Amino acid sequence: METDPMTFVPPSIAAVDRTLEPKLRAKLDGKAKPPGSLGRIEDLAVRLGLIADSLAPRAGRTALLVFAGDHGLTQEGVSSYPSAVTVAMVGLFLSGRSSVNAFAKATGVSVKVVDAGVAADLPAHPDLIDAKVRLGGRNAAREAALTPQETRLALTRGIEIAGRALDEADVLAIGEMGIGNSSAAALMMHRLAPAPLNACVGQGTGHDAEGLARKTAAIARAAARSDAEDPFSVLAEFGGCEIAMMAGAVLGAAARRRPVLVDGFIASAAALAAVRLAPEALDYCVFAHGSAEKGHAAMLTALGVEPLLDLGLRLGEGTGSVLAAPLLAAAANLLTDVADLADVLG
Amino acid sequence: METDPMTFVPPSIAAVDRTLEPKLRAKLDGKAKPPGSLGRIEDLAVRLGLIADSLAPRAGRTALLVFAGDHGLTQEGVSSYPSAVTVAMVGLFLSGRSSVNAFAKATGVSVKVVDAGVAADLPAHPDLIDAKVRLGGRNAAREAALTPQETRLALTRGIEIAGRALDEADVLAIGEMGIGNSSAAALMMHRLAPAPLNACVGQGTGHDAEGLARKTAAIARAAARSDAEDPFSVLAEFGGCEIAMMAGAVLGAAARRRPVLVDGFIASAAALAAVRLAPEALDYCVFAHGSAEKGHAAMLTALGVEPLLDLGLRLGEGTGSVLAAPLLAAAANLLTDVADLADVLG
Repeated sequence: METDPMTFVPPSIAAVDRTLEPKLRAKLDGKAKPPGSLGRIEDLAVRLGLIADSLAPRAGRTALLVFAGDHGLTQEGVSSYPSAVTVAMVGLFLSGRSSVNAFAKATGVSVKVVDAGVAADLPAHPDLIDAKVRLGGRNAAREAALTPQETRLALTRGIEIAGRALDEADVLAIGEMGIGNSSAAALMMHRLAPAPLNACVGQGTGHDAEGLARKTAAIARAAARSDAEDPFSVLAEFGGCEIAMMAGAVLGAAARRRPVLVDGFIASAAALAAVRLAPEALDYCVFAHGSAEKGHAAMLTALGVEPLLDLGLRLGEGTGSVLAAPLLAAAANLLTDVADLADVLG
Repeated sequence: METDPMTFVPPSIAAVDRTLEPKLRAKLDGKAKPPGSLGRIEDLAVRLGLIADSLAPRAGRTALLVFAGDHGLTQEGVSSYPSAVTVAMVGLFLSGRSSVNAFAKATGVSVKVVDAGVAADLPAHPDLIDAKVRLGGRNAAREAALTPQETRLALTRGIEIAGRALDEADVLAIGEMGIGNSSAAALMMHRLAPAPLNACVGQGTGHDAEGLARKTAAIARAAARSDAEDPFSVLAEFGGCEIAMMAGAVLGAAARRRPVLVDGFIASAAALAAVRLAPEALDYCVFAHGSAEKGHAAMLTALGVEPLLDLGLRLGEGTGSVLAAPLLAAAANLLTDVADLADVLG
């Protein structure tokens, strides 16, 4: 059967079976501690059990994928950094000397970079996954960032890459690097949350008042150009390469019944698109932290979720998801490693 | 020179040299990331630098000490658990099957137990430090929990034990186990924060309304018995063995210029006593999490600090400090491992 290249059919994702929840709660309540005394870690343990459909989920090994891509919207001055910084940062991730590498070293998370659409040819590297859809998304203020075919390719590759990463890890963590992508994420939030544009635009990685005005105007022009509101079209019009591929990775992890740790504003926009494409995917998403980026709190509210950490991060790269990884490992260990109260009191 | 056994002179603790702060901020601002984009992790990096008096602090190895002790106040029915649970839990820590062991495995923290005053003889174990002051503190509703000599001994041993732990670790984490010790901590908070008694008494590890009324009445009797308000006397009257020894450990870490990760309500009461004994000690304390125990938020406010995590924990054992340990490691790595922006843009 030929598939229409203009459409995208998400992989089959099972909603979690909530009949397991009382069994998971009972197992936790039987542990050698007062019931409920580990608060949100217990809730997280229940979620991990539901995701794995098991009373003994595993979460000790987390693999971070940093999806990198460029955005033609930078031609409109939406960022205070040039697109060349995306290439430089990819090199830094691969040399192990970026912020997220430093954090991943502290939490035992493996890091790979996915070239989803960096606007330059990148030399091969063992930790670089070449999945380039094109040399940067097009300028969304003037035309769709991606064609439907490119969008479908990005989603499909994201699904595949997530699956391969999860062959060697229990948990997928997603992060991103792409100059201009907070603008892309703002447009996605505007259409998919949905929310008024001014609630979605923040300072990104840094702007003065003039820069923010320029960013806001460019985003408004992009929004005026297309009235797309279905998730596939929104990814094509505004999302661009790395956001579409991250959305695919969320779907891929969910299809594999594995948890996916979602980083900040931009990764959450990708998760939002994934959830709008396949609502069951939400059961598999763990939102790592509440970003300092303006729209993130409202985006999480639109998704009906609460993040684990609140540390004022607004960098991206997966810095927040890497910091949250030990919480998932701890929650899983609670179910698998802790003695029952009955055993202790004998 | 003979020292008066009735008094306690804290070790010499240097206030941190804040002239290093601009240099630490400048180092962070020069890293390959937008200035300030790692929020509270950057603030934590600055604190670690000030504590170590270095632009390259280390925080990769955290050692947790779980201070265990019993409380005569349990004779008044302040806890829904009998004191025998303290012994059972010490056994569980040493077998590696408690909640804090499960969390420590997830975060790479080493765990040792300190017998500060468990009301039973404990068999020797490689991970058990025998520092027993007495077989449980006395019933504070009727008499002082500890004599001045015992209080001094507990503090001194805490200083020594912290120093030894820090021979093999960068960061000390403190936690506790002691049936009845949320009542002891409530009395300490009442006198040292200070705060009205009803703002200090919470449900501890679990109570029904009748149990909470019994706990509150017993605490009120203890408070009525002694008007102590200097920190040493408050530790003696109400704190008991493991809280006094934890206060000593805080002083010991601070005297060594090392960070001490403080767990929840009871560990924070020990830190409060340490800070009242030696105000400079506050510079060395990192408060790991905001506990669900009622008085904790007000205690942290009294100390003028904000915790790193907010996960609704109310177990103790060091579960919160162990979960926060990777954040310190990440913050230190940010200073030591991340490239400068100038190098990247080269």
